[in-house]
Amino acid sequence: MSHAPAERAERLAELVAERGLDQLLVGDLVRPGDSGPGAIADSRWLTGFTGTSALAIVGAESRVLLTDFRYTDRAEREVGEPFERVTASARLLPELAARLRGRVGFDAATTSVANLKRLEQAIEEGGSDAELVAVEGLVSSLRRRKDETEQEAIAQAARLADEVYELVLDQGLIGRTEREIARTAAARIRELGAEPSFPTIVAAGENGALPHAEPGEREIRDGDLVVWDMGALLDGYCSDCTRTFAAGEPSEDVREIYQLVQRAQAAGLEAVGPGVDGRDADEVARSIIRDAGYEENFGHGLGHGVGLEIHEPPRMGPRSEDTLIEGDVVSVEPGVYLPGRFGVRIEDLVVITADGHRNLSSLPKELRVVG
Amino acid sequence: MSHAPAERAERLAELVAERGLDQLLVGDLVRPGDSGPGAIADSRWLTGFTGTSALAIVGAESRVLLTDFRYTDRAEREVGEPFERVTASARLLPELAARLRGRVGFDAATTSVANLKRLEQAIEEGGSDAELVAVEGLVSSLRRRKDETEQEAIAQAARLADEVYELVLDQGLIGRTEREIARTAAARIRELGAEPSFPTIVAAGENGALPHAEPGEREIRDGDLVVWDMGALLDGYCSDCTRTFAAGEPSEDVREIYQLVQRAQAAGLEAVGPGVDGRDADEVARSIIRDAGYEENFGHGLGHGVGLEIHEPPRMGPRSEDTLIEGDVVSVEPGVYLPGRFGVRIEDLVVITADGHRNLSSLPKELRVVG
Repeated sequence: MSHAPAERAERLAELVAERGLDQLLVGDLVRPGDSGPGAIADSRWLTGFTGTSALAIVGAESRVLLTDFRYTDRAEREVGEPFERVTASARLLPELAARLRGRVGFDAATTSVANLKRLEQAIEEGGSDAELVAVEGLVSSLRRRKDETEQEAIAQAARLADEVYELVLDQGLIGRTEREIARTAAARIRELGAEPSFPTIVAAGENGALPHAEPGEREIRDGDLVVWDMGALLDGYCSDCTRTFAAGEPSEDVREIYQLVQRAQAAGLEAVGPGVDGRDADEVARSIIRDAGYEENFGHGLGHGVGLEIHEPPRMGPRSEDTLIEGDVVSVEPGVYLPGRFGVRIEDLVVITADGHRNLSSLPKELRVVG
Repeated sequence: MSHAPAERAERLAELVAERGLDQLLVGDLVRPGDSGPGAIADSRWLTGFTGTSALAIVGAESRVLLTDFRYTDRAEREVGEPFERVTASARLLPELAARLRGRVGFDAATTSVANLKRLEQAIEEGGSDAELVAVEGLVSSLRRRKDETEQEAIAQAARLADEVYELVLDQGLIGRTEREIARTAAARIRELGAEPSFPTIVAAGENGALPHAEPGEREIRDGDLVVWDMGALLDGYCSDCTRTFAAGEPSEDVREIYQLVQRAQAAGLEAVGPGVDGRDADEVARSIIRDAGYEENFGHGLGHGVGLEIHEPPRMGPRSEDTLIEGDVVSVEPGVYLPGRFGVRIEDLVVITADGHRNLSSLPKELRVVG
């Protein structure tokens, strides 16, 4: 990936010029403490720097990465041409302000009101003519198009998670608690050299009807459906997958709902491809669930982008305004949730390709009965 | 802790009134994705809600917590009187705007420029007379004074981490890599029912001179000093501790630097208490290091607050403007870092009490030689 920072900075500089800006600030330099996930992902994508507090300046003639003293060494190891590395001293803001020229974009979604105000003051005190301009999502729009290296990192994280499902399932579900399954899965992910990309969800029976239940002391019993949502984080990139398993033989109505979600998920997969609106892909899956009479029981969107962040653009849902492009990596994850009874969600992760999609999830989707 | 939300909301409402505000927004309701750590800690402290996206409204007559559909059930379990729970629908902003009255404070440090703009628009469109006012750190100023339950949670996290140091040290240091030690420690923390409160630092030899080195494949060799910075997260509360161990017999100059830092740390501990300025406590420890000729090698502050966040107010350092109060929980952690050679840091966590401090770290501070 050693060529990536130069290319990415070049593409970003072009976008900056197109927007009528002279420079763009990328990331968020927070001290003490860490930036939010969006700012961290932006600066990492651009420069390769993996620290949690960094700010880059990109423009026609600017390629600068500011970090703080904690990260001097890491920046030296990770960040090279075309970026100039600067370790910000205690006088961070004056140093930053002195480097700004003309119309300078900042990301309104990742910049706090307080940091903006401090930067404005520093610019004024420094006597610079720089003018700060709010923009949103310039870097994250470029981050959508994953290159081959990024696609492979995500695919590898997905394969690792698939392996962990199998390892844990081999020991059975019935008689174990949700929390035991979730902890064992996280431990296996770590043994294989990754981290969980988000807190694993294992939700049995009626808990499966809560889309983001926390694994608890609920014991998995014969006859339960178990919603299990899990991903791995490898080399900075996330995977995301959900399967719903039957602990012991399921009843007929459980099978029916499962097959409904399975049909909706297959239709959603079939629908995604370059040029497809997120709203339309969502509607393809949603209409199947609606026609079966369960529209009210599918309370979230069809899917979301996955990459350096576990949730990133684009979104697919009834109010989505995004259109899929080649290189997007998105989840396809319809669900039906019956309060007090059970839930079913089936989720694959796919890369949008020139002629459709490539599925990164290898686990079967037929209802699997586990003892 | 069932009484805490009512008391805390009451104290906050008084502070809100003192600042000439009618209401205060606490937290940050982000969809999709999670809020920053400061916003999450604020809403958790106030309401007991542990989800990662929530916004509370507090004023003389307002006690409202807004969450999104993912968290309806969790909010029901965790949040009770005096808070009214509202699950925000897709029309979050109009619903929020309709509840705002008069001068409404928002935290400039945890609110993004984009979210502020959206909220301003919603207020205008809703025809409300609410006026948004930037404030900073109202809730985090109250969070400083830890009550007994909070102090005990932090003390318990600290004891757990102390136990993990011993468990891992029992297996020796020499011949193992930094990463092995860090991973084993994290696994032990999890086995004991907690999570690491931040990524464990294990830095051997020359890596110890980098205050925030990432544990890598560097093998610990006979004669290395090993800086090991670790904490546990238990019931939402963090601990933080650093010890520097000798892997095999250290040389005389290593012992000298160690004893220097040990003296500075003891003096720093001696200095902290209610009414003491963070700058003065820092200077007590720093002057000892300065007098020995190593001022340039102590590049960070003496300590920071620890609680729901691993870094929170107050700060103790050369530019600190904070004064310690009873109930503050702070780290006391001077260090000396000799580039290319080694580093020493010794860190305890203490509660500021009416007449001084109570140390939550039980590990000895004499230089310990481990095989």
